[in-house]
Amino acid sequence: MTPQTTKKTTTQTKKERIAVIGLGKAGLPLASVIADSGFKVTGIDIDAERCRRINKGENPLGEEPGLDELIQKHGGKNLTTSTNYHDASHCTLFIVIVPLFLDKDNTPDFSAISAAFKGVAKVLKQNDTVVLETTVPPTTTETLVRNWLEEGSHLKLGDFHLAFSPERIMTGFSISRLREFPKVIGGVDEKSGRQAFRIYRQFIPNLKQVSSARAAEFIKVIEGCYRDVNVALANELFQIADSLTIDFYEAREAANHKYCDIHLPSTGVGGHCIPVYPWFLVKEMERREKFSYAQLLRTARVTNDEMINFWAGKIIRECLNLNKPLSKVKICIKGLTYRKGVKETYHSRNFALAQLLAKKGLDTYAYDELLTPKEIEKFGLKPLQPSKADIVFDSFNLIINTQTHHQ
Amino acid sequence: MTPQTTKKTTTQTKKERIAVIGLGKAGLPLASVIADSGFKVTGIDIDAERCRRINKGENPLGEEPGLDELIQKHGGKNLTTSTNYHDASHCTLFIVIVPLFLDKDNTPDFSAISAAFKGVAKVLKQNDTVVLETTVPPTTTETLVRNWLEEGSHLKLGDFHLAFSPERIMTGFSISRLREFPKVIGGVDEKSGRQAFRIYRQFIPNLKQVSSARAAEFIKVIEGCYRDVNVALANELFQIADSLTIDFYEAREAANHKYCDIHLPSTGVGGHCIPVYPWFLVKEMERREKFSYAQLLRTARVTNDEMINFWAGKIIRECLNLNKPLSKVKICIKGLTYRKGVKETYHSRNFALAQLLAKKGLDTYAYDELLTPKEIEKFGLKPLQPSKADIVFDSFNLIINTQTHHQ
Repeated sequence: MTPQTTKKTTTQTKKERIAVIGLGKAGLPLASVIADSGFKVTGIDIDAERCRRINKGENPLGEEPGLDELIQKHGGKNLTTSTNYHDASHCTLFIVIVPLFLDKDNTPDFSAISAAFKGVAKVLKQNDTVVLETTVPPTTTETLVRNWLEEGSHLKLGDFHLAFSPERIMTGFSISRLREFPKVIGGVDEKSGRQAFRIYRQFIPNLKQVSSARAAEFIKVIEGCYRDVNVALANELFQIADSLTIDFYEAREAANHKYCDIHLPSTGVGGHCIPVYPWFLVKEMERREKFSYAQLLRTARVTNDEMINFWAGKIIRECLNLNKPLSKVKICIKGLTYRKGVKETYHSRNFALAQLLAKKGLDTYAYDELLTPKEIEKFGLKPLQPSKADIVFDSFNLIINTQTHHQ
Repeated sequence: MTPQTTKKTTTQTKKERIAVIGLGKAGLPLASVIADSGFKVTGIDIDAERCRRINKGENPLGEEPGLDELIQKHGGKNLTTSTNYHDASHCTLFIVIVPLFLDKDNTPDFSAISAAFKGVAKVLKQNDTVVLETTVPPTTTETLVRNWLEEGSHLKLGDFHLAFSPERIMTGFSISRLREFPKVIGGVDEKSGRQAFRIYRQFIPNLKQVSSARAAEFIKVIEGCYRDVNVALANELFQIADSLTIDFYEAREAANHKYCDIHLPSTGVGGHCIPVYPWFLVKEMERREKFSYAQLLRTARVTNDEMINFWAGKIIRECLNLNKPLSKVKICIKGLTYRKGVKETYHSRNFALAQLLAKKGLDTYAYDELLTPKEIEKFGLKPLQPSKADIVFDSFNLIINTQTHHQ
């Protein structure tokens, strides 16, 4: 390659061809940011309609600051999409960023990840680099992912490079996080780590290489564990303060300082991340028969998940104060999504609270400014304007309001 | 009172006469700081020798930056001491700051506090103010303390004022903390709160009045709970990282940022404060039959206390690598106090670790730069220079070193 060629590639589009597998809430912002850094990106997703819209320059997902503009600019140009892995066969970097869920036993369900890597394996070539971004249990990349790639491609690690770099998406901040937030990357072997770091830092400005894929996996998981345990602590102290008739918020404000950061209480922890990650470590320690090693993580999970029982009890006590039979009190849960302002109900405890009250035979309704009455019905709940209810539980602010109507 | 008199009292010593009950590591710095603020202070302690030395201007406690100078300046002058409560009968503010321990069942043992308040009650007069500084379970001031004072004095609350203001002493920083750190105070009734705040802010610059004594009690306890749970989380994640052969410190450094503050691992949590306070809430919730309300606090306590089993296991595995029968390997625990640089072994887990290894029949020794060989023997352990041992566990840095001697 002559110096002239180098100059040409940096001023126009960059040499590396990059595939992003998974164009959801995490993958699409990443693919767009990479395209905006001057790379040709091939997006792969199982949803054909989503692919079609991106190729037309339309954002197929909800509102995400900055995303519309990037897709309008690059969709169908620097960012082309397909449902077919063979359309990415010219790529040399494959980034997998597809969802991982828990099954009913809180064990990770790798089906989407496994399908993605089997797809990548079909088109994997000598010297290609593969990076997983989905948060997974530590050791996943070097064991399961490596096996899927080796078996499907008939190549061996060393022929290709393999690394892990956890996404740090937060809905509403996805683009800015990619551009500013520190991000780590680690290889399953030394060369993989170096190679993946070299490419990634061309589109991730604040990138740090760590010693291994396993360390990178662990780093992401323990951040979630920190949050889950500290929310559980806040929830536990909130319940204790309630029992002692102490104003938790006053106490929290006076207690917090440079060395103390008691979190805010809630109805529990929802979403795809924080309630999921502790289970990765709990289940892995169970598998290793280190049963005592994850007791705190497990207890925190239970504490957060059981907060709905505490809130149900408080709501029912308010109902009993009304001059009506309990079954006639219209209860409205206001706020159903797992976090205020994010249209996402996965593991939403507000949702679970409404279902719990309904299951107890109480006349339970729900309202969420982000959900239509039809969407609420689809979840098996009855929609109602809060003003029409007798008791409204504002789940984001943890306030129970009694409303006096004509009775 | 004429304006002239007011001027005179503020330029010389202040009007209020203050008694401080308990002249230990927390009480003596407080008494000295109050004396240095221009008040006449009467210190009361059961230890006659301690009182005698203070009256001579000597610091009877260990090194504490700034304390020697204050006692030299005020001992026997602004700060006079006695074992007899009647010597404090002219005082109008009584501050109680005596130790509280846990019994074997982790239930608080109020004997020292009860004795102090019964002493105060004997000399309590109309309009006096009483403030407890010892960290206690929430509701203690308004129930137990109030009863001891009312029964012993034949006065009623209202005749006297009663408040709680938790000490925030940290050995090595006691004087600076009193002068800089935020401190809260709360009364058992409104007038008590106002009255105690009015006097206290004359010697505590950064003072905040909260709504009740109970809230002030809770604030201090939850700070300790935050620390204990977060150290337990660090210890749990450290064990998991160990099982996964991940460098915990590398992962912690990469994971921590503005919203994540994973603490440092340890051999557990010792001292008079952090391992004690969570039990206040756990036991109180048990008493109220709210068994689910303090599961996380309880699990954190157990996790921290059981870290010595993890470390014992690691030390023994190192011993097995040596070419010697296990019982012949000289193990030295280096660092016995509960915290580096503080000569205090209460609930020290380093100490418990040494005892555990000795109990298992291993040839266990101990070393601490703050303890003489005689002091180590008094604790039932064998002293040894670390250089003479085969295996040294540096308990403050969590490093196990194998040393090769002539064997």
